[in-house]
Amino acid sequence: MYSFEQLQKKAIEIVENEKYDFNPITLYEPIDYSLHQGGKRIRPMLTLVVADMFDCEIEKAYNAAIAIEVLHNFTLLHDDIMDASPLRRGKPTVYQKYGTNKAILSGDAMFALAYQYILNCDKEFIPSLTKTMTAVLINICQGQAYDMDFENRHDVTKKEYIGMISLKTGVLLAGALKMGAIISKAEAEDMNLLSEFGLNIGIAFQLQDDVLDCWSNLKDFGKVTGTDIADNKKTILYLTAIEKADEKDKQILLNEYLTKTIDFQKKQKTVRDIFEKYSVKEDIEKMIKDYTDKALSALDKVSVEDKKKENLRTFANKLIDRSR
Amino acid sequence: MYSFEQLQKKAIEIVENEKYDFNPITLYEPIDYSLHQGGKRIRPMLTLVVADMFDCEIEKAYNAAIAIEVLHNFTLLHDDIMDASPLRRGKPTVYQKYGTNKAILSGDAMFALAYQYILNCDKEFIPSLTKTMTAVLINICQGQAYDMDFENRHDVTKKEYIGMISLKTGVLLAGALKMGAIISKAEAEDMNLLSEFGLNIGIAFQLQDDVLDCWSNLKDFGKVTGTDIADNKKTILYLTAIEKADEKDKQILLNEYLTKTIDFQKKQKTVRDIFEKYSVKEDIEKMIKDYTDKALSALDKVSVEDKKKENLRTFANKLIDRSR
Repeated sequence: MYSFEQLQKKAIEIVENEKYDFNPITLYEPIDYSLHQGGKRIRPMLTLVVADMFDCEIEKAYNAAIAIEVLHNFTLLHDDIMDASPLRRGKPTVYQKYGTNKAILSGDAMFALAYQYILNCDKEFIPSLTKTMTAVLINICQGQAYDMDFENRHDVTKKEYIGMISLKTGVLLAGALKMGAIISKAEAEDMNLLSEFGLNIGIAFQLQDDVLDCWSNLKDFGKVTGTDIADNKKTILYLTAIEKADEKDKQILLNEYLTKTIDFQKKQKTVRDIFEKYSVKEDIEKMIKDYTDKALSALDKVSVEDKKKENLRTFANKLIDRSR
Repeated sequence: MYSFEQLQKKAIEIVENEKYDFNPITLYEPIDYSLHQGGKRIRPMLTLVVADMFDCEIEKAYNAAIAIEVLHNFTLLHDDIMDASPLRRGKPTVYQKYGTNKAILSGDAMFALAYQYILNCDKEFIPSLTKTMTAVLINICQGQAYDMDFENRHDVTKKEYIGMISLKTGVLLAGALKMGAIISKAEAEDMNLLSEFGLNIGIAFQLQDDVLDCWSNLKDFGKVTGTDIADNKKTILYLTAIEKADEKDKQILLNEYLTKTIDFQKKQKTVRDIFEKYSVKEDIEKMIKDYTDKALSALDKVSVEDKKKENLRTFANKLIDRSR
């Protein structure tokens, strides 16, 4: 069995080692750029962790692991266009660097490349892996559509929000884990438990992201912080504050979220002050812990020796403590 | 064996019958719109024609046929954003109707849906069909990238142009035929011959499209005509004219293609007059015939009775005579 650090290093290595220096370069250069911006490579690592957990040679899971990372980066690439995000991991986003048209097209090609990696896996796994990948992608698109819908709605509930992030973030982590399980020929029941682990840990992950966007600093986070507030994103922080605030503060919040930001700093401070007044951060940290516990309890039921689950437990715990 | 008309009708029917009335509607409505704009459904028909040619029950090929049509429409949807095309089949394009963000996202979901249809096919065919679909898509993206590159280059050759349209249009027709062959468990040699048929007929198809864009009228063509000239697209017409024109006419052409259109009518007339002066249309019609002959000669070698090839021959001949 490999250590957490070894698998993390391996995931980074297999993704970084892939080169995309094909013709036409106008298509492949943005892909190469997108896939070599660093990052923790969490998703491919999860695929490897699961393969290792089931005593499968991790080499057999490399292509599936890369596939899921390429898929993930494809969704980021197109999301950045839709969200008009200037930075990703501290660097210009693909559409900022290469223009919208090339970003759309290179993203499409990455999507196809993700399937290409699946096709490099053992033939027996191709139908299940293709099925998993396709379901993940459809769910992510649904999640992104809800996310955009919510921008124009003022009655979004916390439950709807959790549903949205579960589609947008949870299913991808679940998919990464499931792919590792498929390659390892795991039992269907274990696959379901790992999906449950992934889904819940993915929700916890996104809730943590909301917290970090609000309270982290640019250097640690690698993205511009406070953008959720500037963009009037109805994150879990906002939805919780709206629930808890008295009428006066609620009106202030609603007003701030109805206007385009002019004084970014002032708006951020006003909103953050209300979040802090109602201990929103603590509430969300409690939610993060609950979803993490739910994930861990699904993991407990997976039918492998307990000590083999250590890496996934480490992952879950690191998630809560991260600063970016 | 079915008649050409029966298969054409069936292809239209199976595509039209698919509904996309799922949630979130902001994701699925543009998909539904995109897939119900009429059209000849050439690609799914080709899949059915091939299945029928090999005596395979055409019902077995329905999902693959729909998959290829969904894939095709996904590429149109994203291409229309990149080309800023206002109309498709006489109606507003998806991005015009729903906005760029929804068009990007719905396109992505259509791409995934195309794989979903593949996954509905018999399990034994899934790896080959997935492989075919993925290769087709990567080729189309490469073709579209070359197409965009060519806009900024002034030394594009006719050979490069043919290479580009072969990627952008040919491989999709080849893929549609190949999918029918896969479902029919055809021999590898026959698959290759059918791909060759598709590739060449696809090139002929696009050359014909260039001719129609220049000389057809809006009502017949369903798209705004003359847009290639307005957009300075270096189509086969332009590349042929540049080769044949004397120095004076060549300079006029080069000049027209260096400027943004102000007087659209005037520019179109100037360029068309030069095309006509050098009998460009006749040259391209000769090329179309040559590629069609090449396609038909590959078809001749396919190992089924001659009379079973009648539908593909009809298809090839109709292609040359079409007005849209």
